[in-house]
Amino acid sequence: MAGLFITFEGPDGAGKTTVLSAIAEQFKTAKRTDILVTREPGGNQISEAIRNLILDPKNTQMDVRTEALLYAASRRQLIQETIRPALAANKVVLCDRFVDSSVAYQGAGRQIGEDAVFQMNQFATEGLTPDLTVYVDVPSEVGLARIKAHRANVDRLDAETLSFHKRVRAAYLRLAKQFPDRIVTVDATQPVATVIEQTMTLITNAMKQR
Amino acid sequence: MAGLFITFEGPDGAGKTTVLSAIAEQFKTAKRTDILVTREPGGNQISEAIRNLILDPKNTQMDVRTEALLYAASRRQLIQETIRPALAANKVVLCDRFVDSSVAYQGAGRQIGEDAVFQMNQFATEGLTPDLTVYVDVPSEVGLARIKAHRANVDRLDAETLSFHKRVRAAYLRLAKQFPDRIVTVDATQPVATVIEQTMTLITNAMKQR
Repeated sequence: MAGLFITFEGPDGAGKTTVLSAIAEQFKTAKRTDILVTREPGGNQISEAIRNLILDPKNTQMDVRTEALLYAASRRQLIQETIRPALAANKVVLCDRFVDSSVAYQGAGRQIGEDAVFQMNQFATEGLTPDLTVYVDVPSEVGLARIKAHRANVDRLDAETLSFHKRVRAAYLRLAKQFPDRIVTVDATQPVATVIEQTMTLITNAMKQR
Repeated sequence: MAGLFITFEGPDGAGKTTVLSAIAEQFKTAKRTDILVTREPGGNQISEAIRNLILDPKNTQMDVRTEALLYAASRRQLIQETIRPALAANKVVLCDRFVDSSVAYQGAGRQIGEDAVFQMNQFATEGLTPDLTVYVDVPSEVGLARIKAHRANVDRLDAETLSFHKRVRAAYLRLAKQFPDRIVTVDATQPVATVIEQTMTLITNAMKQR
């Protein structure tokens, strides 16, 4: 497959989405039409419907494995409708969250087991793996404090406990150790401008090397 | 786990649902409160919402693996909300379709691969396997002719081709051969009263043996 597939990962409050938005803006200003910025559910009708189902506060009875299967279904649809066509057209795809998020959040956070979640996701991805993953790292206490300070609406995930967030971060750190060639860690306790700059350098280097 | 878990499988037009309804009626008349008859999605809010998403004719862009993941998500929720609690209460659960349906329809019918669909479903079931599966068998031509004769509204699956139905039936026959201790085949070209009687005998025998 042609193109370049770059994902962005991190616990809540790391500033990952802020960083990715700033980078998307820079590429937009530079009129780079070969860059596609997306995120799960990615704006396609089916993935959006699945996401609404997961986040609907009425669905408090949802089992953690049901949730993991729904995330994988939403991901599969995004891959088929958006990511694979863009890569086939030789584009650089920047995606906010991918399989690592499920491994960290459902596998470790919700304690299903990281390997079980990873294996199940292989059914959805058929082996599609990012060329580069930027992991924006932040200690759980710092991340949670940022969430509380900045967001008016705290959704279901953000309402979880500190121990949940600690499990998520620990899983991310294990993934970074397990896949050192794919995952590069950026320290998100630095000023946001520095985080953006370092991330941009990682992306442009990966684009040069392809 | 206590209780007894019996599933009903078969290609479209085998009369499986008719047979299960007749059997449910007989147990109801006999005031057997230890029998639970259910089907996917099983009436729980989350599974119903997932099923609506799968069957919505607007979602023509749905990838076959997305569909398989959604069926597994719906199944997981039914297991957690209905099947496991009933088995734990020592009930006999009669379920219209289970994992074999996904292996036959998505694995073989939609050509994802029977083993891939089976493995992915293990994430949903955590190994929960029926004690007995009644497979109501009918040749594809007979099944399709029955569907056309009896149903006013032909849904998405029924609109598929004969070759799809032949792949589904062939997969069921392979499963029956692969799991001879679990799957018992009933010939649905017999008169429906005979099919009901033979199925009832299988169920009552299984109930005696537990």
